[in-house]
Amino acid sequence: MKRSLGAKTLIYPTPTWIVGSYDKQGRPNGMTAAWAGICCSDPPCVAVSLRKATYSYGSLINRQAFTISVPSQDQVKLADYFGLVTGRDTEKFAATRLTPVRSDLVDAPYVAEFPLVLECKVLHILELGLHTQFVGEILDVKADEEVLDEAGMPDILKVLPIVFSPGNRLYYGVGASLGHAFAVGKEI
Amino acid sequence: MKRSLGAKTLIYPTPTWIVGSYDKQGRPNGMTAAWAGICCSDPPCVAVSLRKATYSYGSLINRQAFTISVPSQDQVKLADYFGLVTGRDTEKFAATRLTPVRSDLVDAPYVAEFPLVLECKVLHILELGLHTQFVGEILDVKADEEVLDEAGMPDILKVLPIVFSPGNRLYYGVGASLGHAFAVGKEI
Repeated sequence: MKRSLGAKTLIYPTPTWIVGSYDKQGRPNGMTAAWAGICCSDPPCVAVSLRKATYSYGSLINRQAFTISVPSQDQVKLADYFGLVTGRDTEKFAATRLTPVRSDLVDAPYVAEFPLVLECKVLHILELGLHTQFVGEILDVKADEEVLDEAGMPDILKVLPIVFSPGNRLYYGVGASLGHAFAVGKEI
Repeated sequence: MKRSLGAKTLIYPTPTWIVGSYDKQGRPNGMTAAWAGICCSDPPCVAVSLRKATYSYGSLINRQAFTISVPSQDQVKLADYFGLVTGRDTEKFAATRLTPVRSDLVDAPYVAEFPLVLECKVLHILELGLHTQFVGEILDVKADEEVLDEAGMPDILKVLPIVFSPGNRLYYGVGASLGHAFAVGKEI
């Protein structure tokens, strides 16, 4: 028997990603986002939702571009910091001593020290209520050499991304492999 | 130095959720989805993307409703099965011996045996390309008593949701806590 918990944004897993953008003065900024996910395979797209009140919102509107930088679990304090302060009055890259790298594909910066990044141009903007969803076409994925496997693809156990848990608002790591998709279900 | 991997849907974590719906004959169906995420806090909304070719696509269009059932890691084979076969010619609930429960809030069924479920009515439909994104308003979250903590909220380490890794297409569990959001970053 299930207990009703009400109308809440309560589901797992949700991601912990840093959305990178340039403000009107060209200063690099980033903000932590968990209301996000892949939304299309072709063209490859990722969606991220921002409140209008955020400083990044105006930057994405103006620049029509953003990056997503995926922090590793040992960077959890840095990742959280990007959600604690606003870029209106804080230069977050300077405060964290992280390095903003200008994308050569879109008008937005990514975090050099985070192992996996996506460079995106805005394709759609959807007003939903408190949040506005930005759908970005993924123009490139870039990864540190150290997180690649023998086939040259990222290994999630080397990237070690952070899982956000809504409700109790805790961060978690990724655990052990549970098997291959499109395969383990054949035993049913 | 980062290596360019091309325009791919390659990022972590992505979820492993079962989208539940009724077909034209009223038969319960479900499909595995990873291109999904929370997209608004108020109204609480979740987005899930389906290819038009899926059998579920027509059901969501017709019923304007869906559920999301979150499988636990020991249910990974069942979760994968829902992505291996089509509801056009297979009654997946019967094949898995899982129980479809009719939502009393929306015109869609959820999986009784999965620990956490969301009941959603379709608010927006966005054509993106290969995938169509359905934004659903979350009308209720329901959870098994066994996965609730002392405060009556779900505990992710009791739900034990499945993380999907695009690229190598492997499933993973959730690991240890990395600390509190909106808190650990204050040390920066």
